[in-house]
Amino acid sequence: MTAPGGNQRVNIARLSRRLEELGRVGALPGGGVCRLALSDEDAAGRDLVVGWMKALGLAVSVDRLGNVWGVRAGTGDGPPVLIGSHIDTVATGGLYDGSLGVLAGLEVIECLNDAGIVTRHPVAVAFFTNEEGARFAPDMMGSAVHQGTLALDEALAVVGIDGRTVGAELERIGYAGDVEPAALRARAFLELHVEQGPVLERDGIAIGAVTGVQGISWTEYTVAGVSNHAGTTPMALRCDAGLVAARAIVAARETALALAGSQVATVGSLALEPGLVNVVPEKAVFTVDLRNTEEDRLKQAERLTAAAIAKAAAEEGATVTSRTLARFEPVAFDDGLVSRIERAARDLGHSVRRMPSGAGHDAQMFAPHCPTAMIFVPSRDGLSHNIREYTAPEQIEAGADVLLQVTLALANDA
Amino acid sequence: MTAPGGNQRVNIARLSRRLEELGRVGALPGGGVCRLALSDEDAAGRDLVVGWMKALGLAVSVDRLGNVWGVRAGTGDGPPVLIGSHIDTVATGGLYDGSLGVLAGLEVIECLNDAGIVTRHPVAVAFFTNEEGARFAPDMMGSAVHQGTLALDEALAVVGIDGRTVGAELERIGYAGDVEPAALRARAFLELHVEQGPVLERDGIAIGAVTGVQGISWTEYTVAGVSNHAGTTPMALRCDAGLVAARAIVAARETALALAGSQVATVGSLALEPGLVNVVPEKAVFTVDLRNTEEDRLKQAERLTAAAIAKAAAEEGATVTSRTLARFEPVAFDDGLVSRIERAARDLGHSVRRMPSGAGHDAQMFAPHCPTAMIFVPSRDGLSHNIREYTAPEQIEAGADVLLQVTLALANDA
Repeated sequence: MTAPGGNQRVNIARLSRRLEELGRVGALPGGGVCRLALSDEDAAGRDLVVGWMKALGLAVSVDRLGNVWGVRAGTGDGPPVLIGSHIDTVATGGLYDGSLGVLAGLEVIECLNDAGIVTRHPVAVAFFTNEEGARFAPDMMGSAVHQGTLALDEALAVVGIDGRTVGAELERIGYAGDVEPAALRARAFLELHVEQGPVLERDGIAIGAVTGVQGISWTEYTVAGVSNHAGTTPMALRCDAGLVAARAIVAARETALALAGSQVATVGSLALEPGLVNVVPEKAVFTVDLRNTEEDRLKQAERLTAAAIAKAAAEEGATVTSRTLARFEPVAFDDGLVSRIERAARDLGHSVRRMPSGAGHDAQMFAPHCPTAMIFVPSRDGLSHNIREYTAPEQIEAGADVLLQVTLALANDA
Repeated sequence: MTAPGGNQRVNIARLSRRLEELGRVGALPGGGVCRLALSDEDAAGRDLVVGWMKALGLAVSVDRLGNVWGVRAGTGDGPPVLIGSHIDTVATGGLYDGSLGVLAGLEVIECLNDAGIVTRHPVAVAFFTNEEGARFAPDMMGSAVHQGTLALDEALAVVGIDGRTVGAELERIGYAGDVEPAALRARAFLELHVEQGPVLERDGIAIGAVTGVQGISWTEYTVAGVSNHAGTTPMALRCDAGLVAARAIVAARETALALAGSQVATVGSLALEPGLVNVVPEKAVFTVDLRNTEEDRLKQAERLTAAAIAKAAAEEGATVTSRTLARFEPVAFDDGLVSRIERAARDLGHSVRRMPSGAGHDAQMFAPHCPTAMIFVPSRDGLSHNIREYTAPEQIEAGADVLLQVTLALANDA
């Protein structure tokens, strides 16, 4: 049995035109875009998307944190099947991260409109305020407030990198709505997004059926050694903070390889003091970024890394302290919905693979409260948060077709 | 048979007073001194020492680079037995580095004067301009020009960290002498110095009979990897410049331990780019400082380190380039003179050990041209170039007594 609208396909030319048009708002001279949250560029992007929502006949509402919903009515009442993402970007962002999920949602709406399909449940498209966190911390702010994990007043009071607050900037750009964030609920949540990693491209897979978002553990370690003359201090008498940091970097790699699965480990930041060619470092400060889709494995990675660093420090006679910079538990998406995405991809003739998301997304805020899943399409060279971010139209088309089919199915569920 | 004057001993109270008095010139509020080469403070220190030289009856001459000699006549003509070091300091220096060698030389002269000893060969005390290199590069400038390894005109034209030249500053402080540096030669060269390392203190040895100065090899390595998202990039697809740097640090340590002997290896400086918690480093720039008393072993250390870094880079798929920042071959001191220092120490009842110098000294410039050696006394906690630099009076006394005895022996040689 084919679901109603099962023969519908997106219009990739139309979707590509919208991506290009939104990409011109805040476009950078050398390519890419800058639409920092609640900036003039973000405001212009919002106006453009809201205009499209209205032209498609959606009922637009703006909540008190500037999250925008456009709802297409169904035959029944109740919360809509929601397609959402964000349109803010990092300072040197690409055209696809976030925008694809929102504009593919509009394309789904336009397909339904063109075919005259009326679904049982409403279908909505939303974009959430400040997903990137590049101007205001934390990231995923709009969806966090919407789903109640961050208090509205707290979010409004956040001061950005330029000294302005979220609340004042929302007022300034005209997106301080009057709807309480919690007033708008979703029946299910779908987000189409570029992978932002190299896996799909490397393996030639068209569609990622995203099973969840990895848990994240960020720890800063500080090693205290002893500064000494590089020429006159025998190796046996050294207490080299840099060597301990080096052993930590190697241990992080070895821990990730040993745990395998989804485990990744990164030392991205390291500073040595005094940082002179001929002085044994007395201090090393570095970060360890650990991610896993399973909380117990993530905890194991934390323990193994900390133990290896403590051992390296002890062997060198150095002391080590640490502090947690960030810690998020993994989020699991709805298994039934992930299976539906897989099935829809196969029905459309696309290769598909279950995979976790290594990055955070608005979808993870919805996952505890309603059936939620994400659809990934390949990122060229795995690049994202980069002006060279790119996904080809035919790759986008595949993902948007899956989004359309799964949305239709969900919107006609009993 | 006892050499003439074999029962002479230094007056440690007198030597300590001179160290303290010179230490007040350029004294820092929290302890230590700052007498950067050719500064007002250096000039005041020079005036003080030259005053002492004249009071001791030495014939003082100043060469065109500001090197100062004070000569005590012998019964014969010809070049003197020279005791020398420097009185300039780093910006936060101690009271002993350099100054001890010069003031112990004056103490030797005063002992000879007090005892009415007339030696066969003249005995001289000298201090050389800009040994530290903290204001003008290169270091050991005065002795290098004196011994002909650096051209006078080149040295005079050197621009310091404050934009002034050596030549102009010599004129300004009144130490641009008229003697050609090469006009003053030495029959033998002796330098008493604090160890600037922890070995003598750790092992409870009073005297280091310095066998030579380690060769130095400084190399800067640049590793080019690929910047990637810490969450979305599987371990197998990474090209992590920081990991290559970490393996280089570990390899430098392992190479030094494997070569053993005098080999030391230090990675003192490391910078990662972009240096963010959640981004795999695309670039790592670090230095490797290798030192050995034997040139072939130093070359071996260079080869082993470079090979380990190349291997680590290849395994990670990264590329690595390198450039030499500094390279000096090891300097061997005169074995007969080193033996004389050992013998004199033992005759005086002091423990003594042959050891290399890990740091550079004026003595190394003399080594190719006349019998040269150094006497080390312990540095508390191995500290030097540090306001906490300290050597106890009884430790200084032991070293100065050895200097006195060896000087007397050399000055009465046939």
